[in-house]
Amino acid sequence: MYRTHTCGELNEENIGLEVTLSGWVQKSRDLGGLTFVDLRDRYGITQLVFNMDKNEELCLEARKLGREFVIQVKGNVIERSNKNLKIPTGKIEIEASSIKILNKSKTPPFTIEDDTDGGEDLRMKYRYLDLRRNPVRSNLVLRHQLSMETRNYLSNNDFIEVETPYLIKSTPEGARDFVVPSRMNPGQFYALPQSPQTFKQLLMVSGFDKYFQIVKCFRDEDLRADRQPEFTQIDCELSYVDQEDILNTFEGMTRHLFKKIKGITLDEFPRMTYDDAMENYGCDKPDIRFGMKFNYLTDLAQNKGFKIFDDSEAVIAIVAKGQADYSRKQLDKLTDYVRREQIGAKGMVYVKYNADGSTKSSVDKFYSSEDLAEWAGRCGTEAGDLMLILSGEREKTQKQMNELRLFMGDKMELRTAGVYKPLWVIDFPLLEWDEESERYHAMHHPFTSPKTEDIDKMESDPGAVRANAYDLVINGVEIGGGSIRIHDRGLQERMFDLLGFTKEEAEAQFGFLLNAFEYGAPPHGGIALGFDRLASMFGGKDSIRDFIAFPKNNSGRDVMIDAPSPVAEEQLDELELKLNPKK
Amino acid sequence: MYRTHTCGELNEENIGLEVTLSGWVQKSRDLGGLTFVDLRDRYGITQLVFNMDKNEELCLEARKLGREFVIQVKGNVIERSNKNLKIPTGKIEIEASSIKILNKSKTPPFTIEDDTDGGEDLRMKYRYLDLRRNPVRSNLVLRHQLSMETRNYLSNNDFIEVETPYLIKSTPEGARDFVVPSRMNPGQFYALPQSPQTFKQLLMVSGFDKYFQIVKCFRDEDLRADRQPEFTQIDCELSYVDQEDILNTFEGMTRHLFKKIKGITLDEFPRMTYDDAMENYGCDKPDIRFGMKFNYLTDLAQNKGFKIFDDSEAVIAIVAKGQADYSRKQLDKLTDYVRREQIGAKGMVYVKYNADGSTKSSVDKFYSSEDLAEWAGRCGTEAGDLMLILSGEREKTQKQMNELRLFMGDKMELRTAGVYKPLWVIDFPLLEWDEESERYHAMHHPFTSPKTEDIDKMESDPGAVRANAYDLVINGVEIGGGSIRIHDRGLQERMFDLLGFTKEEAEAQFGFLLNAFEYGAPPHGGIALGFDRLASMFGGKDSIRDFIAFPKNNSGRDVMIDAPSPVAEEQLDELELKLNPKK
Repeated sequence: MYRTHTCGELNEENIGLEVTLSGWVQKSRDLGGLTFVDLRDRYGITQLVFNMDKNEELCLEARKLGREFVIQVKGNVIERSNKNLKIPTGKIEIEASSIKILNKSKTPPFTIEDDTDGGEDLRMKYRYLDLRRNPVRSNLVLRHQLSMETRNYLSNNDFIEVETPYLIKSTPEGARDFVVPSRMNPGQFYALPQSPQTFKQLLMVSGFDKYFQIVKCFRDEDLRADRQPEFTQIDCELSYVDQEDILNTFEGMTRHLFKKIKGITLDEFPRMTYDDAMENYGCDKPDIRFGMKFNYLTDLAQNKGFKIFDDSEAVIAIVAKGQADYSRKQLDKLTDYVRREQIGAKGMVYVKYNADGSTKSSVDKFYSSEDLAEWAGRCGTEAGDLMLILSGEREKTQKQMNELRLFMGDKMELRTAGVYKPLWVIDFPLLEWDEESERYHAMHHPFTSPKTEDIDKMESDPGAVRANAYDLVINGVEIGGGSIRIHDRGLQERMFDLLGFTKEEAEAQFGFLLNAFEYGAPPHGGIALGFDRLASMFGGKDSIRDFIAFPKNNSGRDVMIDAPSPVAEEQLDELELKLNPKK
Repeated sequence: MYRTHTCGELNEENIGLEVTLSGWVQKSRDLGGLTFVDLRDRYGITQLVFNMDKNEELCLEARKLGREFVIQVKGNVIERSNKNLKIPTGKIEIEASSIKILNKSKTPPFTIEDDTDGGEDLRMKYRYLDLRRNPVRSNLVLRHQLSMETRNYLSNNDFIEVETPYLIKSTPEGARDFVVPSRMNPGQFYALPQSPQTFKQLLMVSGFDKYFQIVKCFRDEDLRADRQPEFTQIDCELSYVDQEDILNTFEGMTRHLFKKIKGITLDEFPRMTYDDAMENYGCDKPDIRFGMKFNYLTDLAQNKGFKIFDDSEAVIAIVAKGQADYSRKQLDKLTDYVRREQIGAKGMVYVKYNADGSTKSSVDKFYSSEDLAEWAGRCGTEAGDLMLILSGEREKTQKQMNELRLFMGDKMELRTAGVYKPLWVIDFPLLEWDEESERYHAMHHPFTSPKTEDIDKMESDPGAVRANAYDLVINGVEIGGGSIRIHDRGLQERMFDLLGFTKEEAEAQFGFLLNAFEYGAPPHGGIALGFDRLASMFGGKDSIRDFIAFPKNNSGRDVMIDAPSPVAEEQLDELELKLNPKK
């Protein structure tokens, strides 16, 4: 037996006990006649003490232990004279009677401390050492707790977890599918699922009523900073539900998780239409931890001789409370920010509503103080506030203003860590126009149901059709999304038609689903939550990478194991494939 | 709202309640003035009643409902005159006041009944309808319960579930790897994991201490009748443990599952060495629900003039209790059985120890009744028993006798359904000789640790080295297996060497693991249980297929979605691949 206890459980009640511990040498200190060694495992740290007077040989042996050596120690639990009240084991130490080195360790390439000296690349190459650090491991423990609580909540609410296949069918729609050649069926390929969408719908046709799965999904696409080619979803589907039932169920789950894991009781989640979100925040996932909503000054600001506003489709203002004392330099920086290529505004107008009642703006030439007072009236601006204005084409300006609002929120520290403001965004459009391909794409996916009252417009005014689709947004981050699905073959065919599928294509790719709809498909809908994202939100971090045990880098590489990599010629032969490099 | 209740929850206490139900029309019956419709959902069946006298229009509408139509019904819960005590809802029925057809259904291609008229092929093509049948759905509910209980048990015992990657590195060893071309790294491939073996070992190096994962694994191989290209494992690894700790932990888990799910309290699991299993049962996964152990008669049977025995390395007998009255015809059938090509015995010798004390054997010419009495003495044979004897090359005869023993066990109904006899088989050989490649292969896998006392023999007598490896066997089925792992770089290198790896190959494929061992790898070991198999055992079935929602057939095809399938030329171009069909 390697141990009688872990390194995290001994305390005053165990004084006098003979114990065996195993773990890693965190550090050791020689204090003249005494040598102290901190022994670490997942559960904690226990101090070992070696005494030159009592056992010189053992003490000398202990002094030779290097960092991260794996040892087994036997000894007595004794009271510590110099107590450490910060850790549960801090009142005791182990007077060692023997040690055994179970494995040596080279000096790690970076320190195994909460604040390590290792850079990202090095930590990823030696991920197994990085994972030894408390902050990284505790992220994964948190992830485990989240998955357990999620499963228990859903299971207690009659959901059944069903594993859907990973080797599925590739579809031309799935341009970002990973494909998997089949040895038994040469020339043919499986695809890895981007989501179990069609399978969970089939489970509804099968009468499973409430399905969930915590499941890996795959997407072979250029990875933005915080995307992974494989990611995990909490995937759910329910029958005989309308949108309201789903929102309530997953609001319940989210509240449960926050209560259980973080001890936070969340208020009821507000609901906001997509149109309102765009109008007031310029984005479909607003951070509502702070206000600073958009105000439209177009009518007031035009026809006063300021050509830039006169030529604008929209003039939009936000109010930064109590920031009238911004310096010229600070304002210039804001202007620089919105003029960045990624944001693309041409310029920014400001109005300072000074504490003394005076005003100062960058457009004083064109607007009287009465004009500016009128603006203040519409925006609810008070003395001491700073108004920031962008203008131009409406949608573009909304998007630019969204960036500026978030930037100001950060600057003014209104996006408070530890405060969680969830929100349902609802009534998304069914379709979005794609300039490049000059056709409509499904905003959510092709199985999303249009709102009953908008079905008539599907062919006559497709862009105006709203969907029974919803997103769960927390603090400006999209945590999940879903929809009520189409369960009628005819309607699904109309949808495929709108999306530019021929009848033959629809049949070839989704014939099984269309057929299934003819055998008594119940009304159903669902949601998928990004589990990596949810975990990082619970962990209070922005990046998902440290909530994944073995993540890939931005090129989709696992630098630790060095994958992907070339395969042997014979392996390709067996698959009846050949490399075909582009020149 | 689609329903106030499910079809499984209304009973006498709800009489008088106005309810709304939704579900499928299971069947309907016209009894003159009354029409009864059974409405079904996942939770049960509720009877609806329509009365010609009270509401003719509605009753006529109800008569038009076809099988598997999806309807919503409103009505009153009333007491049933003709009670059905077999179902929880059998004392009430719903006097319908309105119905709404939510979706129609074509006539299903097979009946949605416990005993369906649909053949395997048809059921697989319409798996979504097959899953509607109670026995299939209840298999998957059982699977869900098993996974929940497994997770709760392990989590309560300090195990952390960690998701390991699905896109990993292909190794030449992994001849049966599915490979996945990377679009972002053309010409390079990921592989899908056959198991998360190296990752879980790295998690031990990281100090996770106790890891588990219920995880999909993949193997691209010719599928035997009951294998699947994707399958699910309960994958576990622990640090600072020896074999005994692991056996106790997973015996505990197995007992917990049997108790919780089936209400069965299992006895302590016996342990049997691999050598004993081969000696007494001729196989490494004996069904110990019944005895019929092997007896070796070689010394007694030889040198009596019977050339077949004289030329045999081993003469092995089993005793079928009370079967001395087997007819000539029955014995011939047994002989035919062992002579099948798959079994390959040349013949079979029997001895009847008749109830009256006389004996009759197929080798009476060579053996006196004293000889036969001596055999009986060794085998513990009694009057009324039948002795069956095979002979030949030792290992081959053991394997043949294993088949005969199981066949007799079935015939004599000794392999009782509902009786569970788990067993640990331990002390497996580290290596097995492969005739074809003329070298040793790892019996378990290359990371399995040899027993400390056998390490010296690794180079001098590799075949004699035993491993710290173990299998969990229940009723003759291998449910799982594992081992204590190597955690020392030097020993791991010796192992790779034995398996014919060059230093360069070992480094290229497993360098990350070898390196990890140099940074304080703790002693560790683990186990993996076949979850599909475990579920089918709990469900009392032989086939795993009906415990998988969407299984593939023997050619690795999903006939419902028609995968695998060809992919578009452009998709291959993007991957810089080309088909290369064999002539």
